[in-house]
Amino acid sequence: MGGAAGRYVFLDGRVLPADEARISPFDVGLLRGYAVFDLLQTLDGRPVLVREHIERFRRSASLLGLEVPVSDEALASAIRELLALNGHREATVRMVLTGGPAPTGMSFDPAAPTLLIVTHEMFAVPERFYTEGAALITCEYRRELPEAKTTNYLTWLLMQARIEESGAIDVLYHDRGLVSEAATASFYLVRDGRILAPDTGVLHGTVGSLVLERASLSRDVEYGPISLEDAFAADEAFITSSVREVVPIVRIDDRAIGDGQVGAVVTELMGVCRRALREMAARGDTEDG
Amino acid sequence: MGGAAGRYVFLDGRVLPADEARISPFDVGLLRGYAVFDLLQTLDGRPVLVREHIERFRRSASLLGLEVPVSDEALASAIRELLALNGHREATVRMVLTGGPAPTGMSFDPAAPTLLIVTHEMFAVPERFYTEGAALITCEYRRELPEAKTTNYLTWLLMQARIEESGAIDVLYHDRGLVSEAATASFYLVRDGRILAPDTGVLHGTVGSLVLERASLSRDVEYGPISLEDAFAADEAFITSSVREVVPIVRIDDRAIGDGQVGAVVTELMGVCRRALREMAARGDTEDG
Repeated sequence: MGGAAGRYVFLDGRVLPADEARISPFDVGLLRGYAVFDLLQTLDGRPVLVREHIERFRRSASLLGLEVPVSDEALASAIRELLALNGHREATVRMVLTGGPAPTGMSFDPAAPTLLIVTHEMFAVPERFYTEGAALITCEYRRELPEAKTTNYLTWLLMQARIEESGAIDVLYHDRGLVSEAATASFYLVRDGRILAPDTGVLHGTVGSLVLERASLSRDVEYGPISLEDAFAADEAFITSSVREVVPIVRIDDRAIGDGQVGAVVTELMGVCRRALREMAARGDTEDG
Repeated sequence: MGGAAGRYVFLDGRVLPADEARISPFDVGLLRGYAVFDLLQTLDGRPVLVREHIERFRRSASLLGLEVPVSDEALASAIRELLALNGHREATVRMVLTGGPAPTGMSFDPAAPTLLIVTHEMFAVPERFYTEGAALITCEYRRELPEAKTTNYLTWLLMQARIEESGAIDVLYHDRGLVSEAATASFYLVRDGRILAPDTGVLHGTVGSLVLERASLSRDVEYGPISLEDAFAADEAFITSSVREVVPIVRIDDRAIGDGQVGAVVTELMGVCRRALREMAARGDTEDG
């Protein structure tokens, strides 16, 4: 993974050295996994899609009956302050919200949540994932409360050894015959030039939505149920995530997708995404709305 | 819930005031929900079934590829020290193990886990649950890695409002037609004088196992799949947990179990459990093995 964690973090309203930041041993995020987060990247040192990530962060919180206790501007400002202090070349920024302290392991005060922001030097995504395409391995699993970006990544962490052994980039979750998403990315197919997107039981993808919105100017985008068989039989497939943008998927388990090469449509979408994010970063309009 | 958290906690090898105990903001238990725990109670101030809870704690850890980094005796000794310092009348003791700090939100060092022990004044279980019986409400859900006692209680916490509204004691999880367990307790049926216990996809119950072991001296105990219909049609039903021991279940959703009254077999088992735990506590043999 490489890189280093930021020396400063934001916790409950103030920026402080990471080694002085103290999460309570009674925090319900720790004792009961009652927490949501969101993650964004920088491009040329500027945070990207900040508004969209904050919006999703608030939506995740709300699905847990929690409220992010500061304004959008205060969040964006804390992110900028951390990035300036931590001096990463490029960074990932993680916002975390938990229900706060729950000494009984049960009741907590929704008005006193724990709000944390940490940053990390961006990790390098192997270039070959983009040039040769990447693989997924399937895993039967349905995320709990899939529309919320909760901190529960148990299954994904337990799959790490198998992901590494197989050289895959991530796992593809499926349940009762339908695929939903990768553990850390959205998943889409290309069939007959159209883009197919799973429509239920998935997290809203910030980069995925941007790509599909741009792509829809020139081709059909269809939302609906997608079976594992649909995935295996697709012409092309790809995942999207904030830190990896668009990655072509050329293999799922031991099955080649299409001809097993990076296809024309996904190549086009990689460019669309790259240009869109860099234009937005350069204009700074993702930062200030 | 009432009561108070212990003023002292045990964290990574030492006992310290709770307000000085610091969980890292990068802890993978917080960022990714990668953590297990176990919970035991005291009777007359002495911790009960300590050996069994430590054994289950180690088993949960091992299912996550983690190892409890201290000996059984060191754990039991830390529990005794905390109980002496915290001076509860009766207490619950919670042991928590996480993968430790993971600054990237991904990789952590399994050799450097976070080990935490906190105590809390025992909460009162309403006496009417034992005299009149309690209710469960059903919830379609399958715990992830059910044999491990992980910290993921998202679904249970989200169900709290419905549990309270309906006056239930807990939720009963079922998946694809089969019941597994309550969110915070094991679940069993009585049919024709025999005790039926779900056999797969459930956490090993420490008190439940004790009760079934004692009960098996005088009646049949059968392990196997149990459907929701089996549950509705049972003569009697009950849950077991460390802090509540045996609680009769007389209603599931809007259906009465048996005649809707506390039955003879469960009444017998409540006595069996109470006597067994108190004898063990008095002898102290659960504490030292």
